[in-house]
Order: sequence, then structure tokens, then C-alpha cells
Amino acid sequence: MLTSNYTGSTKPSLYNDAVMLNDLSRDELISRERALLERFAIHKEAGLALDLTRGKPSPEQLSLSDELDAMVGGEFRASDGTDLRNYGGLTGMSEARELGAELLGIGAEDVIAGGNSSLTLMYQYLLHAWLHGPLDTKTAWRLEPGPTKFLCVVPGYDRHFTIVENLGFELLNVRLTDSGPDMDQIEDLVSSDPSIKGIWCVPKYSNPTGHVYADNTVKRLAHIPKIAGPNFRIMWDNAYAVHDFDDNPPVLANIFSHCETAGTKDSVIQFASTSKVTRAGAGISFLAASQANRDSFIKTLGIQTIGPDKLNQLRHVRFLKNIDGIRVLMRGHAAIVKPKFDLVVQHLTDGLTSDSIGSWTTPRGGYFLSFEAPKGLATEIVRLSAEAGVKLTPAGATFPHGQDPNNSNIRIAPTYPSLDEIDQAMPVFVTAVSLAAVRKLLQSSEKHA
Amino acid sequence: MLTSNYTGSTKPSLYNDAVMLNDLSRDELISRERALLERFAIHKEAGLALDLTRGKPSPEQLSLSDELDAMVGGEFRASDGTDLRNYGGLTGMSEARELGAELLGIGAEDVIAGGNSSLTLMYQYLLHAWLHGPLDTKTAWRLEPGPTKFLCVVPGYDRHFTIVENLGFELLNVRLTDSGPDMDQIEDLVSSDPSIKGIWCVPKYSNPTGHVYADNTVKRLAHIPKIAGPNFRIMWDNAYAVHDFDDNPPVLANIFSHCETAGTKDSVIQFASTSKVTRAGAGISFLAASQANRDSFIKTLGIQTIGPDKLNQLRHVRFLKNIDGIRVLMRGHAAIVKPKFDLVVQHLTDGLTSDSIGSWTTPRGGYFLSFEAPKGLATEIVRLSAEAGVKLTPAGATFPHGQDPNNSNIRIAPTYPSLDEIDQAMPVFVTAVSLAAVRKLLQSSEKHA
Repeated sequence: MLTSNYTGSTKPSLYNDAVMLNDLSRDELISRERALLERFAIHKEAGLALDLTRGKPSPEQLSLSDELDAMVGGEFRASDGTDLRNYGGLTGMSEARELGAELLGIGAEDVIAGGNSSLTLMYQYLLHAWLHGPLDTKTAWRLEPGPTKFLCVVPGYDRHFTIVENLGFELLNVRLTDSGPDMDQIEDLVSSDPSIKGIWCVPKYSNPTGHVYADNTVKRLAHIPKIAGPNFRIMWDNAYAVHDFDDNPPVLANIFSHCETAGTKDSVIQFASTSKVTRAGAGISFLAASQANRDSFIKTLGIQTIGPDKLNQLRHVRFLKNIDGIRVLMRGHAAIVKPKFDLVVQHLTDGLTSDSIGSWTTPRGGYFLSFEAPKGLATEIVRLSAEAGVKLTPAGATFPHGQDPNNSNIRIAPTYPSLDEIDQAMPVFVTAVSLAAVRKLLQSSEKHA
Repeated sequence: MLTSNYTGSTKPSLYNDAVMLNDLSRDELISRERALLERFAIHKEAGLALDLTRGKPSPEQLSLSDELDAMVGGEFRASDGTDLRNYGGLTGMSEARELGAELLGIGAEDVIAGGNSSLTLMYQYLLHAWLHGPLDTKTAWRLEPGPTKFLCVVPGYDRHFTIVENLGFELLNVRLTDSGPDMDQIEDLVSSDPSIKGIWCVPKYSNPTGHVYADNTVKRLAHIPKIAGPNFRIMWDNAYAVHDFDDNPPVLANIFSHCETAGTKDSVIQFASTSKVTRAGAGISFLAASQANRDSFIKTLGIQTIGPDKLNQLRHVRFLKNIDGIRVLMRGHAAIVKPKFDLVVQHLTDGLTSDSIGSWTTPRGGYFLSFEAPKGLATEIVRLSAEAGVKLTPAGATFPHGQDPNNSNIRIAPTYPSLDEIDQAMPVFVTAVSLAAVRKLLQSSEKHA
């Protein structure tokens, strides 16, 4: 691994001597800009071509599951005798449903096991509710008289937002706080606007910040349908349910339990997958919902397919076995992924803390962390980084329509690049952030001069 | 194999002595009914539980492809170096697209390789055209002022009909002739009704009759969009493209070529899969369309998934290799399936020809054959067969809304049951047909008495 210039004992004066950037005089800022430009020129000359955008597992992570392919081995039957090579089984192989239930901490009867994409299950569910109604064709979202709206916790996952945008929803931003979505804001919104039909949530290691929803947030969310009505749906994408870095990971409250207490179990649809457990392109997916929801959804699902690939479900059942098998595997992932997150955070801390530029999250699991740049600078930081060969997720991508009202959030995806690549890319990012921040202060001081 | 009572040298008098049923006197009919009831009672006593409904491969057929599971073997890369375990590749692995192209006899650039269900691709395509327009959001089918209609060649495949019914289309029956759909009827319909948006076709070994569309039918179909307009789509489900029984099989005309000549290539969407080549529940699927259609469709597809299971595509590419590999495999299927079709036809011929009751098809490939009962008798024949332990596809199932206007078509699916089972089931069917026919003549003679 390359040793970053500003980490360890060889920190350059650029970072070593930094004071709070805001405290610098105009001359000091000009001098700082000059030093940063020199550094930036060195980065550019290095001709890097690095990529911090890809929220996907590294080859080393994928290799942890290479035994999957040997799992069928001429034995094609489920424990109930079903020949899994043939048609049928719309809700999936029963052992796969049990595996999904263990993953989500719920009962197997509530789980449907699907194909290689939980995103597809999410689309299919929302299409079903829009086209045919969550439980009743008379309540199909498309039949609402006016525009329908969907709550999007921001920053969030662009593909979630695109699905509801594509179905014609108006998207309303909800702030993410350290304990999850701003529940006061949500309660206010749904109280005053019956055209709000649902909310997207990534409750554990939220994409892109890595936050875990607090117990009280989950409890309050379970009560939202009592305000919003029976036609409202919480889209609970538990994509990172088992993607912990620590041995004592944060525990997400069980939303089904809270909903049962609140009498709102029909209002939440849960999702999970093994995409980031086994194989990103060839895992299996899960949808969990109340019986009423499943009965209704399956009618639409059965029009679209004769059933999922049950042999791939068999591979997964035999390879992962149960939640203990999943946890062992996830420790292998953590051993690869956590050092990458640590390295990103180390660069940010060493490079930006003393200057007090921006802020960032330090997730305890998941696939992303989030950098909050000084207001208005995200686009410029992404541009500067790209100029020096480091590709970042476009500024705004974590907001509906790609519009970050503060132009400050930047998603960083550390899993795919190697430690060496992160060690090369992060100094470029840090330089880009510092340069953009110094220039903004200079512009501001010009105005006031 | 059991020897049927009425085949070979031991034909019972019941069939041996039969004359054209219509020529029998009332007394002779009563005597015939009595003999048939005795036979029917024997069938019932046998306590059979047989099933001729399942259009799926037998375990022996599935075993032909069991080597698939060994095909990945730690080598996960496509020829272009792509790690197929990871995300991406919305249109599928390029070698899989080439395989689909060989299967359909077209260029690989026109092919998208998908997941385990071509039915899903069909649904996704029709949803796309309905929701967002085939090529242009302004022409979305759902925005049409009045009801939209879809042509259904009958008898046909119930799952096709259900998709368009589910999207709110009115379904119009089009007669199937020995050369394919009745083109005069189609030309008349689309000339006078611009609300007709498309047609379902299974052009080779049509489900359930086994007909292959004649060259001139394909040519005339390619001209239909010139009458129906650019917003019309031919859904060309070539599900049985390579499912031949003979070494010199019928050749289906290439609809893309005819459409290119007619200037209508944007109006046809082709589908195929390996569901009945390798594995019914775990094959790969293909959609083929012009670039304009693909460009438009991919935008919607990309909202629903990050891409298909490329490892299963890899398995298929390595196992099947190319069209020659597919043809070798399909000869293996034919060796299993053709004797079953032959046995069904033998029973029908031996049991019903001399009485001149009903008619049936003798397909040269595919998965089904079709029995045409005397008008009004299909429901009764299905009921009688079930009473004696032989389950048949419900009468009407091959028509939109399950409504066969003649109540005469019965789909027979010979692939899944064993030869023994067919040999036990067909005498029951033949007896049920004869009994229903005799009773109908008796009722008719009562009226005239």
C-alpha cells in the first residue's frame, strides 16, 4: 500500500500546520490556494484513473461464495421432493423462504423468495399497488384523482427514487437525522396530505450515509399508516441487514413487531437479498409482507412469471444453510471491507479535520459512507476530482431528480476499489475538497473586500 | 408399457365394429351408450390419478442438461473479461445474446438475453408499451382515448391472453387455420379498428395445436403494421423454435426479413427461451427487436433491474455452445417426447377414427396437441375424464377469458406423463369422448322423436 503523504509520521506541512480554514486571512487563503494547486497539479500529472462510485462487491468478496456452483451437484430436489429444475413455485422454494425469514428475523410464512434482484421485487410491488391497488383494485394508486406523492428519505438511493418517479409520483424529500428519517416532518406531511402513498426506507446502514434507524424511529414509523391511511406503504429495503463490520453490531428494531402492536402490519413491505452476501448479479431476493398483501401481490406476480429460478435458491440454501452460515460469511466480507472504510475515514480525518472542512459518516456496516461538503461545493469537488482522475458519484445523485438542494452530499463507495486504489484516490479527493473550500472563502472575501 | 385394449391385434369389438356414429339408429346408440358406460365403469374402478395438463418437460428431459451445473467451475469471466458474478450488463452477457441470435436466426445486435422467464420479458415489454409507449411516451397505449384491443389467435396460450387482459385490453379472437392465423380476418379487423394495438403469435408448433405458420402468413403478418400503424406490435413468441421431432422439420419463415422488406421491423418483438431446452424453471430468455425498440425498452427495463443472472447465462453458453449444440440436445428431447405424441395420436386414431368423432392435430414438434371435440362437448369430456381419474386442461382454457365459443377445444400435453401413464390415460379420454358424443346424438334423437 502507498503511504499517504499526510498520514503517519510524514504528514506534509499542508495538513500538519492547518488551522480552522475560516480563521485564515485573505493572504493566507491565497497562499493556501497556491499550495493546493501545486498538489493538485501533482495529482493530475500522476494520470490516475480511479473510481469511487461503484456500490458493488470487490472480486475478493465475490470469491467468498465461489463454492455456490458446486452446491447443486446432481441433487435437484427440495426437502418436500419438488424437482427444482422444473416450472412452478411462484413464491419460491420453501427452504429459501426460511432463509429469508432468518435474514429478516421474521416468520417464513410471510416471505416470498424471488430471483436475482430485490429491486425487481420492489418495482413489481409498487407497480402492483399502482396498477391494481395494494389490497383492492378500487384503491389502485393510479386511480387517485390528483397527483400522488411518495416520501424519499434524503440522501438516499437513486434507484428507489427513479421507480416512483417513473410511475408518475411526485417525490417529497424527508431529512435524514442521526436517528433515521425526521419523524416530526413525516408526521406533519402525512397529516396534511392524503395524496402521500408511501415512503422509501433503507433502515440499516442507510445508503449512502450508513445510519441505522433508532428504535423509536421504527416505532413511530409503524404508526404512520394510522395517520396516512390503509393505502399507504412503507417500502422497507433492508438491503444491509447482515452487513455488519463489528462483532457487536447495532440492532435494528423489528418493524413487523412494531406494526403488529400498532395494527399496521398490512402497511409495510420488507425487502432483502443476497446480492451483497453471495453474488451481486446472481443472488436471490426476498419480499416479506402480511398475508393480505402477499395474497394480493401474488395475483399480479403470477401474471408476470411462472416462478423464480429455484435451482439458484437451492444453491443458496445449501451454501448459506441458515443465519449462522450467513453471519460467518459476513465476517469474511467485513474483514475485506472494513479496512477500506477505515482507510477512507483516516484520509478524511487526517486531511480535513484540522481545517474543519465538511463532515462525514463513519458507518458500522453497509456499502457507503457520505461526505457532506460545505454548502454549494459538491459539484465542484466532483469536477475537480474527475479532472485529477478520480471518478465520484455525481453530486445530487442521492436526491430525487438528482437535485441536492444544498449541493453538498457526496456518496463514497469504498468496497470495490483495492486498498491501494483508495490510498491513491483519497488524497485527490481531500485536495479537491480543500481547494474548493479555499476558493469559496476567497470569493466570499472578494465580495466583502 | 400397457397395451391398449383397442390397439394392435386385440382390438375389442367396441372399436373394431364401429361405423360412422351419425349413421347409427336410436337403438344402436342406446346399445353403444350401454357398452361405453360399462367401459367407463371399469376405468373408474381402476382408480387412476393421471394428469395430461402439464406443459412442462419430464424429468428425463431435464436430466439431458444436468451437466449445466458443472459449467461455471471457478471461471466466471466472459470472453471480454467481465466478471459475471457482479452487477451490470442490463442486456445480458454478449455470448448469451449470440446464442439467442442463433436460436432465432437473426443478428446478435438485436437480442437481449434475460432471466429465467421469457414470459416476464413479454410482460415487461407490453407494460413498457402500455405505460411509456412503444417508442414515444406520447403514444403510450394507456393514453388512448377509448378502449384498446389485442388480437388473440385461438386456440392459444392462456398466459398470453391474461397479460393483455390484466393491462385492460379488450381481447379479440382470431381464427387459427392450417396455415396460421386467418389473415383475411386480421386484415379486416385492423383496417376498420385503429384501437387494435397488437397480436399474440406462437408461430412454430403453436400452443396448443402444433401448427407452423406458412411462409405466406408470415409475409402477410409483416405487412399488418402498414395497415394498423406504427404503434402496433406483433408479439412473436417463438417458444418452440428448435423443438422439432423430425430430422427434416418444417422451417418457419424469418419474420424480421419479411418486416425489413415491408419496412415494419420496428413492429415485431420476438421472444424465445431455453425453458424447454435446458430447464423449465432455470433457463435463460431472449427478446429480439429493432434498435429503436431496444433503446426504448431498455430505459424501462433499467428501472426494474440492474441486470439478469449472467452466471446462468454463462452456464448455458458453455453447455449449449451454439445452434449445433442446441440441435444435438433437441434430438435427445425428441427421442423422449415424440413417442409420447405418437402414442396419443395412436389412441385417438384407433379409438375415434372409425366412429368419425372429433378431430386432432399431429404436430411435428412442440409441447401440445389439440383435440377438437364435437361442438359443445369439451366441458363434458373434461368432466367425464376427471371422474375416471384423468385430469385434462379445463375446457376453454385456450381461449381469452376461458370462453371457447364452440366449447370444443381440448389441449393435450403429452410431455410430462410417462408412456405408461399416457397408455392408461388415453383410453379413458377416448371413452369419455365417445360417451359424450353418443349421448349428444341420443339427446338430439329424443328431440326429433
